[in-house]
Amino acid sequence: MRSFYCGRLRAEHIGKTVTLYGWVDRRRDHGGVIFLDLRDREGVIQIVSDPVRTPDSYPVADEIRNEYVVKVTGRVTRRPAESLNPKLPTGEVEVYADEIELLSAVRKQMPFQVSTAEEEPVREELRLKYRYLDLRRERMSRNLRLRHEIIKAIRRFLEDEAGFIEVETPILTRSTPEGARDFILPSRVNEGEWFALPQSPQLFKQLLMVSGLDRYYQIARCFRDEDLRADRQPEFTQLDMEMSFMDQAEILALNERLVCHIFRTVQGIELPQPFPRLTYAEAMARYGTDKPDTRYGLELVEVSDILQDSGFKVFSGAIASGGQIKVLPIPGGNEAVSNVRIKPGGDLFKVAAEAGAKGLAYIRVREGGEIDTIGAIKDNLTPEQKQALLERTGAQPGSLLLFGAGPTDTVNATLDRLRQALARELDLIDPDRQNLLWVTDFPMFEWNADENRWEALHHPFTAPHPDDADDLTQARAIAYDLVFNGYELGGGSLRIYQPEVQAQVFEIIGLSEAEAQDKFGFLLEAFEYGTPPHGGIAYGLDRLVMLMAGEQSIRDAIAFPKTQQARCLLTQAPSSVDPRQLKELHVAPTATPKPQA
Amino acid sequence: MRSFYCGRLRAEHIGKTVTLYGWVDRRRDHGGVIFLDLRDREGVIQIVSDPVRTPDSYPVADEIRNEYVVKVTGRVTRRPAESLNPKLPTGEVEVYADEIELLSAVRKQMPFQVSTAEEEPVREELRLKYRYLDLRRERMSRNLRLRHEIIKAIRRFLEDEAGFIEVETPILTRSTPEGARDFILPSRVNEGEWFALPQSPQLFKQLLMVSGLDRYYQIARCFRDEDLRADRQPEFTQLDMEMSFMDQAEILALNERLVCHIFRTVQGIELPQPFPRLTYAEAMARYGTDKPDTRYGLELVEVSDILQDSGFKVFSGAIASGGQIKVLPIPGGNEAVSNVRIKPGGDLFKVAAEAGAKGLAYIRVREGGEIDTIGAIKDNLTPEQKQALLERTGAQPGSLLLFGAGPTDTVNATLDRLRQALARELDLIDPDRQNLLWVTDFPMFEWNADENRWEALHHPFTAPHPDDADDLTQARAIAYDLVFNGYELGGGSLRIYQPEVQAQVFEIIGLSEAEAQDKFGFLLEAFEYGTPPHGGIAYGLDRLVMLMAGEQSIRDAIAFPKTQQARCLLTQAPSSVDPRQLKELHVAPTATPKPQA
Repeated sequence: MRSFYCGRLRAEHIGKTVTLYGWVDRRRDHGGVIFLDLRDREGVIQIVSDPVRTPDSYPVADEIRNEYVVKVTGRVTRRPAESLNPKLPTGEVEVYADEIELLSAVRKQMPFQVSTAEEEPVREELRLKYRYLDLRRERMSRNLRLRHEIIKAIRRFLEDEAGFIEVETPILTRSTPEGARDFILPSRVNEGEWFALPQSPQLFKQLLMVSGLDRYYQIARCFRDEDLRADRQPEFTQLDMEMSFMDQAEILALNERLVCHIFRTVQGIELPQPFPRLTYAEAMARYGTDKPDTRYGLELVEVSDILQDSGFKVFSGAIASGGQIKVLPIPGGNEAVSNVRIKPGGDLFKVAAEAGAKGLAYIRVREGGEIDTIGAIKDNLTPEQKQALLERTGAQPGSLLLFGAGPTDTVNATLDRLRQALARELDLIDPDRQNLLWVTDFPMFEWNADENRWEALHHPFTAPHPDDADDLTQARAIAYDLVFNGYELGGGSLRIYQPEVQAQVFEIIGLSEAEAQDKFGFLLEAFEYGTPPHGGIAYGLDRLVMLMAGEQSIRDAIAFPKTQQARCLLTQAPSSVDPRQLKELHVAPTATPKPQA
Repeated sequence: MRSFYCGRLRAEHIGKTVTLYGWVDRRRDHGGVIFLDLRDREGVIQIVSDPVRTPDSYPVADEIRNEYVVKVTGRVTRRPAESLNPKLPTGEVEVYADEIELLSAVRKQMPFQVSTAEEEPVREELRLKYRYLDLRRERMSRNLRLRHEIIKAIRRFLEDEAGFIEVETPILTRSTPEGARDFILPSRVNEGEWFALPQSPQLFKQLLMVSGLDRYYQIARCFRDEDLRADRQPEFTQLDMEMSFMDQAEILALNERLVCHIFRTVQGIELPQPFPRLTYAEAMARYGTDKPDTRYGLELVEVSDILQDSGFKVFSGAIASGGQIKVLPIPGGNEAVSNVRIKPGGDLFKVAAEAGAKGLAYIRVREGGEIDTIGAIKDNLTPEQKQALLERTGAQPGSLLLFGAGPTDTVNATLDRLRQALARELDLIDPDRQNLLWVTDFPMFEWNADENRWEALHHPFTAPHPDDADDLTQARAIAYDLVFNGYELGGGSLRIYQPEVQAQVFEIIGLSEAEAQDKFGFLLEAFEYGTPPHGGIAYGLDRLVMLMAGEQSIRDAIAFPKTQQARCLLTQAPSSVDPRQLKELHVAPTATPKPQA
């Protein structure tokens, strides 16, 4: 029986005889004395074996190699003064191995060395294929532990401080109206019919409110069959919550307490409360995005009114077509950013172009209110306009003003990306800051110009602001997102609980009553039997773990993630199946698997 | 903002003005005074409204009907002496409603009344279709809460007392070798390939041991596409655990502490420790089953040696064909069980026949060692045999001896079923007893006579007993089941971690190296890089909840269960899908959905 984890031995244990189990992190042979760094999940301890002091263990120690699994029994002793290692929590002690038992050897060439993988970066394909070795590394082991601690903190708060009840909702279910593509699977028993995996437990959690559960939560697995981006996975985990009889203010306050509890418990960080709140309109105006990173300034400034009559057609044309002109003022930008980078072919021009901008106008502000820019702008700028621009943007000598002019969406997207890129480049981001804020008052609908119709910005159960009942198409939703350092961490809304409001919303998005009945008739029917006012929120848990771990990829926050091609390199899922299996499921394949590299 | 849950109001709150939210459980109009039982998840409180004392609320109270959702503001007062209700936790008080706000009405005929559903049983189809109303009922609400409390107790023990780390393993994965049919779903991105839903996280948890996690747990959703029985669901939840460097004794001791913690925390029950242990051989001998209900006696007695040379061919023939003769002695059975019930056409005969028995021999023990039975038995029984039978079975005057004779499996199955049926009938089962016991030393393999080959009794990673290495086909496995009042609550084993032992097991079950590589090559490869000795266990959580709730059906332990036809009556999943969706998934249907009733 293990008496201690390796990583837990300290000076207080000197003199004890201990039994340890673990992996040989590194083996060093110092001229007849063998040192083993023995590793378990709690850390590393130095094991010593030599032919004189530990003759029984020496022959085994001599045979052992890195990553062998061993059992060690020995005495904890103080390290000699010259080999104390203050960097290691166990660095004051070492264990003289009376006995070493080899439990399991390494029989193949290691694809990468666990102990040195931090210093010698390993290709991600290799890490994912040998995930069990990757997870032995300190970094990934720490990430898994952090994930566990975060989930534990969430559960404890919700259960002990807020009266939430965990309920498991089905994985084999029916399409949910989240808008993405469903994963579906054929039913064997019910011929020709299919289950869908849930994109979220949305409908079930609303039904639980109808059932009077009052406060529900779940760490829920969700599924979206989307084309994957760097931070997406076909299956992901969300903290899912729903509560009855609470208004937005109460929900946000409760969630702030939750988030503060997580940071306090897991990382000892006290977040300032209350979290700042921005309306959607304000966030878009000041940052060009609904998930602004407020760890730095570089706020956008609208100058449409100043330049609407400009002789420079890019400016006046933008306004005439219903668009906007906004400025991203960059203090010290004159020095930091050369013209080459802003002009076609330059890296910043590319950032702007990728966001849809046709060009990237700029003004460099010099001493004494002088400016440098292209002739077409300079020649068309009246002294009054120039003065107004400098005042409005707060520009100082040395400032660079980057312009977005055109459709509002494009202007915002362009300046948002430039803002982020320049903040990174100019080192304006304090990595130790945790900026959390709420964005509220989202619009209920957005206009889909391609399909010439309104779409629900969130989902069609989102409640409109009661003050905006006159014209629901222009209404604000009682919806809120929690933003963490520029990432959307969670989002939710109050839900519609009055059938007549629900009917109006369906009408606006062009959903006929028959279609609504077909899609989620059971929810609408449930609402006929006494429905409490309710609302909820969902957090992207993988992303929260990623951010708190300081990782760049969501895959580093998940034990067994899939690649961007939706494959598991470890198990080689998905894979081909026996045709008999498909026959039982009442389907025939119309494609054959491609050979894998 | 709610100031109290309805069910939490007590005498100490008298004089307070409170704001309550809830559903009208019942409305009674006592000649101008209206009483509302207002219900929320914590219980019920009596609300009073009359035109004189509460003129503002009376018109609303007058309009309200059962299951309407309301907000009530009012004063907590002591009930008049004649209307105190000691059965209700809130029965000392009532709330005079200064204000009642109708939040949501019932607009349809209720399919069943929530408040009286206990007394007037509701068809299960109706309960499942309107699950949100079913979950409003006290019984189901209590079951959901119990489930939550059980899971909470599990997590707290494993995290706080035993150092387990929760890890989420994939739902979109590859077949696992559990032996049942997989649910599979087509990959859109990887044409012609399929994901499988996990039957358990078995392979992943073993990989986590290879990665050094040391102690893993998960409340894991698992999936089996089986033909459903009363206590099966296509998706179910298991408590899944795996641990390294522990032997069987340590694993069982830890799990006993866990189970004791659950019963103590959730129901205040102290289970006696240690749990009794039976070997598989002993369990089969004494009870005819590997999951005996030990709340009552009625143990089986083998009498093969006594009757092997009997002139009664049913007995001697059973032995000659390699079978067994066993007796189920029933004290007082003469009086309780008539001959008609034992003979062909009788109910007990049927129980025996369903278990495979060809007949049901019996002996009735009378005063003074006399016996009654059919002539063919009586005439062939020597006085010595009779004497030995009576002594071995401990039969007393009045006892009925039921015989099983034939193949061992059939004898055991027959007498096991008879034993259970008679214990229920004779009221031998104390419903308040919690009998937990371990069954250990399962055989590694069982012989599949149809296919003429050995099969793994558990799964092919189960470790054999080291003392039985000489002939692995006859070896005991280091496998253990936890049995609770006759139900298998959990089961597990130590795993094979030495490649050469694994190879032997594959050879015995006739799995070629190529097949093994194809099925779980990634796990076998993982074992080449330093594998700790490890083992684990999994508990059927739905069943645990069902048993602790005193329910008969697993569906009453699950928020949104499926029927035995694997359908969700609430959402109508599975359902037909758009053919375009199938085209994207590279499959064509070979059946069309049947119309649903």
